[in-house]
Order: sequence, then structure tokens, then C-alpha cells
Amino acid sequence: MNPSTALARVLADELARLGLREAVIAPGSRSTPLAMALAAHPRVRVHVRIDERSAAFCALGLARASGRPAAVVCTSGTAAANLHPAAVEAGQAGVGLLLLTADRPPELRDTGANQAVDQIRMFGSAVRWFSEVGVPEERPGMVGYWRSLAGRAWGWAAGADPGPVHLNIALRDPLVPDGDPSWVEPLDGRPGGAPWTAPEPVPEAAAVELPAVERGVLVCGDTGEDPAPFVAAAHAAGWPVLAEPTGNARYGPAAVGSYRHLLAVAEFAAAHRPEAVVTLGRVGLSRQVLAYLRTAGVHVACGGGPRYADPVRTAASVGAGRARVVVPGRRRGSGAWLASWQRADAAARAAVDAELDAGGLSEPRLARDLVAALPEGSLLVAGSSMPVRDLDGYARPRTGVRVIGNRGASGIDGLVSTAVGAALAHQAAGGGRAFALLGDLTLLHDQNGLLLGPGEERPDLVVVVANNDGGGIFSTLEQAEHPQVFERLFGTPHGVGADRVAAMAGWPHLLLDHPKQLPDALAEPGPRLVEARTDRVGQAALRARVQQAVAAAVRDME
Amino acid sequence: MNPSTALARVLADELARLGLREAVIAPGSRSTPLAMALAAHPRVRVHVRIDERSAAFCALGLARASGRPAAVVCTSGTAAANLHPAAVEAGQAGVGLLLLTADRPPELRDTGANQAVDQIRMFGSAVRWFSEVGVPEERPGMVGYWRSLAGRAWGWAAGADPGPVHLNIALRDPLVPDGDPSWVEPLDGRPGGAPWTAPEPVPEAAAVELPAVERGVLVCGDTGEDPAPFVAAAHAAGWPVLAEPTGNARYGPAAVGSYRHLLAVAEFAAAHRPEAVVTLGRVGLSRQVLAYLRTAGVHVACGGGPRYADPVRTAASVGAGRARVVVPGRRRGSGAWLASWQRADAAARAAVDAELDAGGLSEPRLARDLVAALPEGSLLVAGSSMPVRDLDGYARPRTGVRVIGNRGASGIDGLVSTAVGAALAHQAAGGGRAFALLGDLTLLHDQNGLLLGPGEERPDLVVVVANNDGGGIFSTLEQAEHPQVFERLFGTPHGVGADRVAAMAGWPHLLLDHPKQLPDALAEPGPRLVEARTDRVGQAALRARVQQAVAAAVRDME
Repeated sequence: MNPSTALARVLADELARLGLREAVIAPGSRSTPLAMALAAHPRVRVHVRIDERSAAFCALGLARASGRPAAVVCTSGTAAANLHPAAVEAGQAGVGLLLLTADRPPELRDTGANQAVDQIRMFGSAVRWFSEVGVPEERPGMVGYWRSLAGRAWGWAAGADPGPVHLNIALRDPLVPDGDPSWVEPLDGRPGGAPWTAPEPVPEAAAVELPAVERGVLVCGDTGEDPAPFVAAAHAAGWPVLAEPTGNARYGPAAVGSYRHLLAVAEFAAAHRPEAVVTLGRVGLSRQVLAYLRTAGVHVACGGGPRYADPVRTAASVGAGRARVVVPGRRRGSGAWLASWQRADAAARAAVDAELDAGGLSEPRLARDLVAALPEGSLLVAGSSMPVRDLDGYARPRTGVRVIGNRGASGIDGLVSTAVGAALAHQAAGGGRAFALLGDLTLLHDQNGLLLGPGEERPDLVVVVANNDGGGIFSTLEQAEHPQVFERLFGTPHGVGADRVAAMAGWPHLLLDHPKQLPDALAEPGPRLVEARTDRVGQAALRARVQQAVAAAVRDME
Repeated sequence: MNPSTALARVLADELARLGLREAVIAPGSRSTPLAMALAAHPRVRVHVRIDERSAAFCALGLARASGRPAAVVCTSGTAAANLHPAAVEAGQAGVGLLLLTADRPPELRDTGANQAVDQIRMFGSAVRWFSEVGVPEERPGMVGYWRSLAGRAWGWAAGADPGPVHLNIALRDPLVPDGDPSWVEPLDGRPGGAPWTAPEPVPEAAAVELPAVERGVLVCGDTGEDPAPFVAAAHAAGWPVLAEPTGNARYGPAAVGSYRHLLAVAEFAAAHRPEAVVTLGRVGLSRQVLAYLRTAGVHVACGGGPRYADPVRTAASVGAGRARVVVPGRRRGSGAWLASWQRADAAARAAVDAELDAGGLSEPRLARDLVAALPEGSLLVAGSSMPVRDLDGYARPRTGVRVIGNRGASGIDGLVSTAVGAALAHQAAGGGRAFALLGDLTLLHDQNGLLLGPGEERPDLVVVVANNDGGGIFSTLEQAEHPQVFERLFGTPHGVGADRVAAMAGWPHLLLDHPKQLPDALAEPGPRLVEARTDRVGQAALRARVQQAVAAAVRDME
């Protein structure tokens, strides 16, 4: 057997023993041994994508939805650099990703050979660990080295601080199998399918105690942790839960779905200054929450270990995310604190609904109605920029839907592929249907994520696109006050309907005329694009009207 | 004036004094001061692109065609990582690129804030120079610092070893101008529009002398240098010129257009072993040239300075690329050496033409006929993988066409954007029309490069796509011998016609039925997509038949 094939087969086998189940492969010549070994492995499902950037985000979606590292394989050169955006997101979000870049051997580097570039540590601090694997050769001891290396890579990718790992794998010709099974030593791993080195069990984190105050608030941001113990503790303590969509804590009687609108009402925020705030995960989707955090007497930041999120630098202590949460031994408070939030939330909700129902199709209404219409067991991928903020502002609390997004770095790139990968993993786990809510720039940025070759598995994914022909978020920011340059530099219209994107990629497409068509549109199986056309200026005006209506409703209460 | 606006205006002004004329801007909030300052500068033309990867490649095309650095601006987070592929290509190819990434200030880093990632040295060794600029503040001395910094960046980007430069620019709110013109010191630069620090003149390289042998060969590969002195010297010495397309040396009586087919004929190669080979630029597009280099008595590698290309490690000495070339004082040889190449070339050319003309539309014929049909003064962008190799194998030598490609790292990514940028720069310089020959995977990979907002300049660019529904090069490699996995892992069909891509982006599209329609199709102004549908297996078979016909013709001669 040639050394390139031997290395690739051993790596694929050892990674499968460690738990690898999904690999995304971008075509290339130098990566041939890795692609063929992974495709031949019975326990690894492979997906082929022609754009490496999309391939890496597809792996990210597979890993995020499945909770276990996924691999992405590419050839040498700029191909490898295309993995960088997903590596950055995975590093920030703590998602296990195995970046397997084929490389040219040392004698072909720095000498002008095709597709030979410096791939050593090319993702810098974005990855948890890098290894220059070395050109495989037929020597005793190599099998143990390769299997051990796979174990260490898996340990970094799937451990207590999960994230991306980069193995740079230089390969010499021949790159295809030669049919000769012989090798200087057995290629087998440990008997019984055991890994060469079983990874360290993830430690159980220490308990977190909620501060013993009545006026406490739990804010849940983006996290891979289970928020249920925190939500239960907050409920027991009589604290409201302010839950950003991708924290998956937006349920139960303590969830205040309208918190963003309430906190934007100065009188409400002043009257509800917290003695203590406990945050879980990456919080800070809205300026309102950031401002509210600054008013807290005590802030305990939970989740992420040394990577804990503390966007306004107020944390007095750091708690664990995986922790058992211990409610203090005192009796719960009078109940007046939570009741005050709940009353305001009900009034705000009524004002929001009245405003949304008075109009036709709008981005806030789309976000609200989408979440309400999703079947139990759904996965929802929240697009960056406006969609995740509209879900935050307008979706009613509910159970039975898992929301994920790329909130590590909050980019708009790669989200179609992330959604496709997440949908494939969600289905493979028997989890049900998958949906995404994306803006038009997000759709266009990663339209290559829609490309599925005839041999590829097609996800039951419905991508709902709010198409306002450009970057809607800027209409809500200071840039909008500079009309002479605004439209070109920030509005960035493109004139591309999602129907044209769908036709390019061969996805069915449906244009919504009225919000009431949404449930029927979602009922059709995916892959499918559902488009709602909106206008940026009108949406910004509607959001402002909703905020005014909530302010009026809250003031009327008092 | 707020510090973010002041820094951005000073940087834009100083870069324009140094020679910046083109900037590509991707939308974002943190980058607002840079975008507004560049857009407001009268000497800088800005282009807006929503995909940062495409934006960076567009800047690369502008820089490559214009010969002076271009800037790309993006916001913080994964947006910045999307510049990496173009940075790698620019670094390998020696193209000046100013990567201006906006960043969050230090207090928003590593704390979970949106779009805050580690951007320090994020392009690693791909860039010539990196600077963490520091958050701007209103302090005496800052104007001189910023202007000096721009000069140093320009010196790296445009100097003797040009390439990409990364300025990471952390900016604090407010990010939009406040209308207040005051500042602690004058913001002006030096009087008369002079730069703060005038860059070092690029040194004139030493002369290169061709080895004093009769059986010498000049091989010209990809280079930004002017090959004319080398071609003239080779002609004077009676040496044949083997010219890869992007070296722009494929002209004149010494150019052997069929060299690739000739060198693949073992008898011809054995009978034409060179005493000396002089290479200029990045050579090694074909296995034939790589094998031929190994047979040379002496190899002198010219161009690139310490980055000289030497793909098979045979170089005995390194010469300069920019050099005056000195032909040795001896009389030229008998002429028999060059004549032997020319006779074989004529026979090979006739065999190639007979084979191509006997069939209909094919990729080799498309490459040949395209080059023949281009108007004088055209720019041609050669796609990676098969198109550049078909141009190498089949285009007849001619003058009046400049060919460029991304041969630094030879990726298929970013080529649409590179072509768009190059076309815009070519036209701005009054250079004439622009064309590209790309494969279908290359088109799809960077279809975002076709997206031009309504305010954007539209290039007179005709993109000719050879659509064989997948990766054609693999049908010519060893992978084709593994049919059970070949089509999915390497063929990678997608079923997307270029008509659908064109319709997505709003480009006119024409499908060629017959090769004779090509000149008319090219005559229409761009932007425009012209598609030829081919099949991968048939093309591989045709290429093999052409090679057999050349071999037979050469053997018949002897």
C-alpha cells in the first residue's frame, strides 16, 4: 500500500472509532487519499461540496446540530484558506471541527509549484490546536503515531473546550490506492473497535448558586449548554428569564418574550433595575440588553469557562455553564418582581401583536408567525443581522423548537450551508424537520450552499428569506442619517429575487403574498425556498412604531 | 471631528497621494469610517461588493491589471477571514493589495461581543506586512503617524517585492462623521499633494546573460514582469520560446505554440534535450514542462527575487526578472536548433488543427478559437484548472492580447471577481475589451462575483464558460481509474447551466451551438456570459487523440 493511502485509511478509521460520523469533502487532487478513505468508511457519511467555504460551514452545521465534531477535507492552496471563516465561527462558538487540509510535501513548497502555499498555522488563533502531520512514509511506528494523533485531535475538538482543530497533511504521489494491501506493520487499531487513546471524560463543572436576591434576572444568550437547569432555577427563585433565540431558554412562565421592547422603555428599565443578573452564554444581541447589564448590582457570567461572555465588562464572577444550578436556600420572594415583568410582558405582547396584525407581510410578523407555525421537534436556523433580532423581538415563547445560529462571530457568511448541514444532522438523529430564517444578503453570500449534486442527500430544509433587497440593519443605525452615500455603501441593493437564486440551484421556490400563507408554505417538504419581499425603510418604520406602541402600553399600565 | 473619521480621512488621503486609485468595499458597520472616507475621495474609485471573498478578488483583479495596489475594506469578524483566499493568491503572485479590516477596540475583544474575533496577524505568512494600527485618538502627532503608516504600507505593497499588506484598524463609536471639522492639529498632508514619505524607488535589477549554448530554451511562466527582453534575447540566440499563457511571451517567430504536445512525444523530447533552460516567472503548468526541466544541462531561474520559481529543484543560478537581458557575444548558432523546433511545431499545429476542425464544439477548440478571435488590445483572464491548460496547449501564438490568471496559488476560487476587477481596470486605462475563459466549477465557486448592484460600474467583460458539468481535469488524472467513487468525489456534477447562473445575476447569456458562432458572440458588449456545453469524458478522449495525432505527425517527419 502506498503511504498516502495508508495514512488516510488509518486516520479515517481512528476518527470513526472516536466518534466521527460526518465529513464534508471538497473536490481536489492532493486530498484524494483522504476523500477516498472517508468515503469508503462504513461509519462515516460523506457530503461533497464544490465551494470549500460552503463545505466548511456545512461541516459546522453538522457539528452544531449533532453535538459532535464533523470533518471537512480540502485540497492545498487557496482551497484551504476558504475554510478560515468557518474556523473562526467554530472557534468563537465552541463547535468541534476537524479541518483536514491536504498539502504538498516540503520539496514542493516555496518553489513555485501549483497550489503550494504556506499552510502551516494558517488559521492562526482561530483553531484550538494545529498539527503539521508530516509526509507519511512506510516505517514501523507510524500506525501508532497516526492513531494517537487522531485521538489528540479529537480530544481538542470534542473536549471541555470544544472547537476547531487543523491537521495539515502533506501527501506525496501516488495519491490513489494501488491495490497492494501489504504494509510494514499491521494497520489495525485496538481490538474491539476501541480508540487508540480514549479521550478524557469531560469534567462535571462546579455548581452555580443564584445570588440570594429577589430582583434577579436570568439572561440567556447563545450557548451550546443546556439552559434547563438555569431556567428551572430562575423560575424557582421568581426571576424573569430574558432569552435570546439561540440560547433555547425562551419557554416557560418566567420567559419574558417582549423583554427587548420593555427594556427600551426608559421608565420600565429604571423601575426594573436588577440587584443581580446571571447570564448564560454569549449575551448581548441587542443594545437594550447591553445597557441593562450595565445597571445590574451583581453580574455572574456563566458558560464558556475562560471564554465566558461579558460584553460590557461587568461580571463580578464566573460560573460554569454545564453546572448544576443551586437555588439559594431562602424562600422565594413575594412574587411581585416576576409578576411585574409578566404584566408588562402581556401588555407589550398585546401592543406588538396589534401593530403586526394591522399590517400585512413584514419581517417582524414573519419571525413571529414562523416560530408559531413550526411543528414540534423542529430545528430553526436563525440568520445573522436582522432575522435573529426579529426572532428575539417578536417570537412568542414556546417549547419544541431548537434554535441555532452562527452567533460565535455573528457573520452573515456561510449560513445557508450551516442550515443545510444542521438539517442533515437533525434528520439523521430523527429530530424532525428543519427551517431557516435568513435575509437576502445572507442568502446571496452563501448561495453556493444551495448547490447539491445529484449524489448528495437533500435536506428537509425550508429556507424562509426576508428579501428587502439589501442590508436592512443599516436602516436602524446611524448610517441611515447620511443619505448621500447610504444606499450605495450600506443599503447595497442587488435586485436579485430569491426565485432567481432558487432557479439557479434547482430548489423549489414560493413567494408569499400574505402572512396567512406561511403555514401552508412551511408544510411542504424541503429543500425549498420561501420568500417574503419587504422594504427596508418600511420595516424600520414598523419596528419604530411597535416600540412606540409598547412604550405607550407600558406607560398606560402605571 | 471624531477620531474614527479623522483616521479614515487621513488614511484615504495619504493612500491616494501614494497612488491608490481603486478600492473595493464590502458593507458593514464597523468599517463605516473607512468606507465613507474612500467613497468621498475624488481620486479613488470605489466598488461595492456584498461578499468579502469576491470583494478581495475584485481588488486583486484591479491591482493585477493596473499594476498598482488596490484596497479592499471590510468589517470585523468572519468578514475579515473571507479576504484570506485572495491574500494567499496575492502573496504568491506578488500583487499589491491593501487589506483594510475594521476591528472592534480592545475592550470589546475576547468578551463575547458581536463580530469581535482575533484579527491580529490573521493572514499569517500570506501578507508581506501586518500592522495593528491602534484605536485612533485625538492626540498631537497622530496625523504624522497615520500618514507615515500609509507610506510604509504602500512601500510593502508596491515595492520591489510587491504583495498584500494587512492593516487591522480598530475603531470606536461614533463611526459616522459628526460635522465638526476641528481637530487638535492640522489633518493636512504635505503641501502640493506630496506623500508624507515618498517610497523608495524600485531598484533596477542586474543583467542576466543567456548561457552561451546553441541548444538553449526559454520557458516563460506566469509573471508580472515584462518578458520582451527575454523573448528578444532568445530570438537573437536562436532559442525556441515555450510560453505558458499568463507569461505573455507567446508571440514572435521563436514561439513554439505546440510545445506541450511535442514534449509529450518521448522521441522528440529525447532528441531535443537542452543544454540550458532559462525560465522566467512561475513555470510548470504542465507535467511535460516539469519533466523537460529535469533534462536540462543548466537551469537559470529568473524573476521573483528570492521567491524565484524552481518547481523541480534544478536551478543552478537565479537571475533577475526585471533585468536587461544580455545575449552572449558569440554569433548565433547554425539555426538548426530553432529550425528543428519550428518544423515540428508546424507539423504538430497542423495535426492539432485537423483534429479540432474535424469535430464540433470542444474545449480545446474553444481555447484556440477564442484567442484567435480576440480584438487587438484585449485582456484575457485564464481560468485555473483546464482553461489555462487548454490555452497553453491549443492557442496559436499572437500579439495584441494580454493574458492574466490567478497562477500564484492556481486556485479556482475568486476568478469571476478577478476578471471583473481586471476588466474594470483595463477599461479605465483605455486598454480595450476584456474576456475570460472559465470552467463551470470556477464560475459557480465565485458566482457572487457576477453580482453588481445598480450603482456599480458594469465591466465590458465577456465570460466564456466551458461547462462540462463538473471537474474536467480529473478525467485526465489517475483518479479516473476508480470508477466506483470517481463521479461523486471528483467528477462532482451539479447540473447547473450557465444560463441559470446568468439569470440569477442578471447577466445576458448566450449558448453556443457551433464553434463558428464564437466571433459573433464575442462581438456583443459585456457584461455577458457565453456558454459552451461539453462533456468531460469526450474532452479527455479528444485531448488524447490530439496527442496521438501530434506524435504520429512528428514521427512521420523523421
